[in-house]
Amino acid sequence: MKESDEFLVLQKYFKNLGSQFNDSSGILLGPGDDAGLFTVKKNDLIFSTDVSNSDVHFPKDLAPEHIAFRSCAVAASDIPACGGTLKWLSISLVTPSKNLDWLKQFAKGLNLFTKSYQVPIIGGDLVKGKECSVSIGVCGEVSRKEFLSRDGAKVGDSIYVSGSLGLAKLGLKIITSKKKKLTVKEKKYVKKFLQPKVHTLLGKNLRSIATSCIDISDGLLGDLGHICQRSNLGAKIDLDLIPYEGIYNEALTWGDDYELCFTVPKNKESKLNKLLSKLKLKKFKIGEIVKGKGIKVVQDNKEIKLNRKSYNHFAS
Amino acid sequence: MKESDEFLVLQKYFKNLGSQFNDSSGILLGPGDDAGLFTVKKNDLIFSTDVSNSDVHFPKDLAPEHIAFRSCAVAASDIPACGGTLKWLSISLVTPSKNLDWLKQFAKGLNLFTKSYQVPIIGGDLVKGKECSVSIGVCGEVSRKEFLSRDGAKVGDSIYVSGSLGLAKLGLKIITSKKKKLTVKEKKYVKKFLQPKVHTLLGKNLRSIATSCIDISDGLLGDLGHICQRSNLGAKIDLDLIPYEGIYNEALTWGDDYELCFTVPKNKESKLNKLLSKLKLKKFKIGEIVKGKGIKVVQDNKEIKLNRKSYNHFAS
Repeated sequence: MKESDEFLVLQKYFKNLGSQFNDSSGILLGPGDDAGLFTVKKNDLIFSTDVSNSDVHFPKDLAPEHIAFRSCAVAASDIPACGGTLKWLSISLVTPSKNLDWLKQFAKGLNLFTKSYQVPIIGGDLVKGKECSVSIGVCGEVSRKEFLSRDGAKVGDSIYVSGSLGLAKLGLKIITSKKKKLTVKEKKYVKKFLQPKVHTLLGKNLRSIATSCIDISDGLLGDLGHICQRSNLGAKIDLDLIPYEGIYNEALTWGDDYELCFTVPKNKESKLNKLLSKLKLKKFKIGEIVKGKGIKVVQDNKEIKLNRKSYNHFAS
Repeated sequence: MKESDEFLVLQKYFKNLGSQFNDSSGILLGPGDDAGLFTVKKNDLIFSTDVSNSDVHFPKDLAPEHIAFRSCAVAASDIPACGGTLKWLSISLVTPSKNLDWLKQFAKGLNLFTKSYQVPIIGGDLVKGKECSVSIGVCGEVSRKEFLSRDGAKVGDSIYVSGSLGLAKLGLKIITSKKKKLTVKEKKYVKKFLQPKVHTLLGKNLRSIATSCIDISDGLLGDLGHICQRSNLGAKIDLDLIPYEGIYNEALTWGDDYELCFTVPKNKESKLNKLLSKLKLKKFKIGEIVKGKGIKVVQDNKEIKLNRKSYNHFAS
């Protein structure tokens, strides 16, 4: 993004987004040169990247400010999932729209995100393409000793989720139905899709409590499955303990909520309870890590079979 | 990228690309968790991101390994342009192809790039979309005192380019013509488009020599224009001194070559000469930074007007 019109667009709408947080995040030079320059106090950093694509991750005609906010949240969610604190974001936008108002609204969504999570933008790229695609890079800080990976679960650890599942999927259905007058509950669902909460405070505090953690992007069963697979263990979860709305088959296998799923050893549960009440989060203990492989979903001690496991881009 | 088929694709083709350079680059944990973990020895880092899109930056039917290599080179080029050394890359791929062989070939191109520049991949994302779009994040190291920005040019500084311009554009024309039997020269042009050189050695050594630097991604006039604009000065360049092939109007206004353009004060020119001969690079002094605004292109002391300034995604 270096030429006249593009340059003016960037200068006008994208230049100082979140720059009020440059100092606190160690950004010495933001967008405008070949690269952004930043400094670190700790030696260890984490980085993740996520693409949100039109018609895959959001409806094609979703308002640009919502596309921007949600794309940032989805990507940023990986940082607390590793026990990290957010440092900066980078934004690569491919858009079919030449409309300046579209770009302005997209920038508005970015601005809202940077303010909500007090995180600056280090740089980006803006390219014209056939469909809208937003690739967000996120950098965070966490020391290697405190990095919350997927492979640390132990037999007997309790399994938790940070909030109710299935809401974003219900919200998406409402958005695509174009329904106008929404109930309070429907508004809540829509908000969950458009602005999934990034659990920044929970994530960074979990690093001294949890043994493993993941953000639920592709559905509880798939993502808890990754913890199990990487930890070489299995899981048993109780449907009656899982907070969800809508149909359980969807709520457990569809992502989009970006709640955290994490495992906690017995001797850390009281510490977790204190943390949850401090953060005003409900306690959702949904099951336990067990020996073996795979995830068993039970209700009244009977195993339940689900139709699909989780979202898959390349399934035919 | 967390689910079964995608997961298997990543495991199989993308997992260990460039991981032999993890230690030297400080990557403690590569792809496979919510985020990659890395450590730094110096306090200051740089980051840049670039998107390469089908039909904009490369022909739609370009072989996937070439798409991969070129996308990496284009993005990585920003690091030496700031005087930095490459640390790692992240790869976000949107692709319409479900074909495993396509993905395998794409991974082959990434692998070739990581080996050519001894740089690891910290992570990525893989998403299905209507058109191919590759967003590459690049991280590099350079101290804040040595960061080569665009705004340091001074009156009287000589302007240099690192190599001949226009070749990649000629290469692209040959590629799109589908011509089969190529001359040695034509092969050179095609290679310049497919594998533009990332000036890693030149860039990091320029930080003690140059006053400003930029990589020519959108054309010499546009990119030197950024140096001028940011330095609040003008430039006078001589067409007879500019190394180019093809039509000068294209060679000076079309990017794709990713040569560096940099400014050097008179008292550093002997040091530059030594560096260029050590790196076996030709010396291309093309003009001088002057007072005023804008770039004057002259030949036989007469000013030349060019038809277009540089590439613009959003020009109608």
